[in-house]
Amino acid sequence: MSPPMISSPMLPDPIALAQALIRADSVTPAPAMVFTVLAAALEPLGFAIDRFVTGEAPDGPVENMLATRAGTGRHLAFAGHLDVVPPGEGWTGSPWSGEVRGDMLFGRGAVDMKGAIAAFVAAIARAPRTAPLSLTITGDEEGPAIFGTRALIDRMADRGLAPDYIIVGEPTSATRLGDTIKIGRRGSVNIWIDVPGRQGHVAYPHLADNPITRLIAALAEIEAIVLDTGNQWFQPSNIEVTDLTVGNPAHNVIPARAAARLSIRFNDEQRGEALVEYIAAIVARHAPAATVTASISGEAFLTEPGPLSTLMSDAIAAHTGMVPDLSTTGGTSDARFLSRLCPTIEFGLVNATMHQVDEAVAVADLESLTVIYADVIARVARL
Amino acid sequence: MSPPMISSPMLPDPIALAQALIRADSVTPAPAMVFTVLAAALEPLGFAIDRFVTGEAPDGPVENMLATRAGTGRHLAFAGHLDVVPPGEGWTGSPWSGEVRGDMLFGRGAVDMKGAIAAFVAAIARAPRTAPLSLTITGDEEGPAIFGTRALIDRMADRGLAPDYIIVGEPTSATRLGDTIKIGRRGSVNIWIDVPGRQGHVAYPHLADNPITRLIAALAEIEAIVLDTGNQWFQPSNIEVTDLTVGNPAHNVIPARAAARLSIRFNDEQRGEALVEYIAAIVARHAPAATVTASISGEAFLTEPGPLSTLMSDAIAAHTGMVPDLSTTGGTSDARFLSRLCPTIEFGLVNATMHQVDEAVAVADLESLTVIYADVIARVARL
Repeated sequence: MSPPMISSPMLPDPIALAQALIRADSVTPAPAMVFTVLAAALEPLGFAIDRFVTGEAPDGPVENMLATRAGTGRHLAFAGHLDVVPPGEGWTGSPWSGEVRGDMLFGRGAVDMKGAIAAFVAAIARAPRTAPLSLTITGDEEGPAIFGTRALIDRMADRGLAPDYIIVGEPTSATRLGDTIKIGRRGSVNIWIDVPGRQGHVAYPHLADNPITRLIAALAEIEAIVLDTGNQWFQPSNIEVTDLTVGNPAHNVIPARAAARLSIRFNDEQRGEALVEYIAAIVARHAPAATVTASISGEAFLTEPGPLSTLMSDAIAAHTGMVPDLSTTGGTSDARFLSRLCPTIEFGLVNATMHQVDEAVAVADLESLTVIYADVIARVARL
Repeated sequence: MSPPMISSPMLPDPIALAQALIRADSVTPAPAMVFTVLAAALEPLGFAIDRFVTGEAPDGPVENMLATRAGTGRHLAFAGHLDVVPPGEGWTGSPWSGEVRGDMLFGRGAVDMKGAIAAFVAAIARAPRTAPLSLTITGDEEGPAIFGTRALIDRMADRGLAPDYIIVGEPTSATRLGDTIKIGRRGSVNIWIDVPGRQGHVAYPHLADNPITRLIAALAEIEAIVLDTGNQWFQPSNIEVTDLTVGNPAHNVIPARAAARLSIRFNDEQRGEALVEYIAAIVARHAPAATVTASISGEAFLTEPGPLSTLMSDAIAAHTGMVPDLSTTGGTSDARFLSRLCPTIEFGLVNATMHQVDEAVAVADLESLTVIYADVIARVARL
């Protein structure tokens, strides 16, 4: 069923390329060097490299890269990021060693997501060269993500590039490579509630205005909200209160201020702005003087099962024997931006060690992912 | 109506005595010197001085003094404290100067309550020498109050002293000397609620246990409590949440712990221990793993209007023309302990500057208070 793989000792090795990318330390925002490593691997494959820097402090500047190769047929884009989260303390070796110990390749970014980027390059080299291909690679996905993928989307629009399908190489596999594809993600919004009051002595509460009383009333009402019950593809939207702040050391004093922070993860039945307005209205009823501020990290997105998820599932099944779950769980990713362009799904390595000490990928998984991505390229080319 | 006052230039002057007491710096717990100043004023008036030290660190040792003079008839005790709260920054002069500027005598303790103690000594000197009198003076009312008045009560019991009436010289007057007598005080309890949870990522709330959710549910129920509606002498009991503590800087993390602190001021229809049990039961329903700890600062007390408050009101009316309010408002005082012995009321100077920078008493008020106390002694002697 799958096309014959092109195999040659001269083709890029996903292991060696992953090691080279890991060795170019790129704690978010990623500096230029790691892009140079990637560009050097793509140029021999016929890609035109468009590197550009966007944004200013404090959320920039950010290095980005758009690599394109023309062709005929459906345009597949592979999206990812070369920045990594800080390594933290306690690694067995250097987080930038990229060393293979036993069956595992170690290093910050091994699964999130330099390994997947290496696999995509290696897959391109092994797949038929027919359809147009792009790589949209940002240096700021783990940071503020203001001048990363959004700038790449603008760049594509400026250049008239319109991919038909996008695959984001985030580590979506839970326990075995191929067990999970993400076809959507919940949206996320953080909301800060700040309730002013009038300080006073607890013995004379009528002379004071306890902001905690107002805050608790608002939060109790917020906790009782059932936003939705989920749907075929999404779990129910969920509100968590993640912080309470008063900081009043005096036992006998009613404080002048009380604050709370909420985190809402919501499905495609909700919109971030409407959620903020809903919360703000509840707060205003209990604490008219309160301020409510919000930061919408992303709206929910869903790529309803279709050609892209089907061919990805088929490629996974052909090489692993597993039928992947089509999931929408977990945190946000840059797929929330890209999905506005065209059907977008996420598939990549096992995420068990992502963001952790001794992040590592199985060498065999890197090779399998290369084969799966190559098969996906071939399947898209046949659409 | 009132007995003739004995007046002589040799009698102790309340102004000079208040100054001498203020100049003996006695930030809580009061050291021995200020007691020596007071003893020197009482000995010429025929008082036997019993000074003793109680307690150990951290809440002791505490200097106390029991001064007694025998007589026939009802035994009146005057209770008070020689310790003062720290002066704080920003005084116009030295907080220990005791200087008179204009009509006012300045210094830490001028109204709370060295002025009242000076007035009581001066009043005794001016009143008929018939009935038995005591002074119970502690050096720790503003501090933990563990080894102060409670130790004095034990000392009186050991010595077979049983006063018939007690007047506490706390500054009860609100805006004019004589406007308010305290015939009771609310009780006070502070309660700490500590709710453990299980930390986790907000994207996976089913793997976590948000302690804030439990805390808000408990606090919402607590906020809805109506303990009572007050009664003839007391305002309703009141619960205030005075602090919330989580301290979670991570927007995407459900925290491992949430805490709150309550302050309940309660009238004589409530008991501290029962309130703590009530709150603990509510918390346990919402957060079985929570810990609830409490500190009962004092139970409510009430000296129902009777001979003592009547003669105090009459003495005030005779010398100021005002009929004082019989109040139970405000914070706690040592009267909560003394009221277990016999009818106990509180009357003293204007409290506007107590615990504040530039604490000061009107010289005229010190003289008026001396006259009122002397009249009270005379009226008790005639009972």
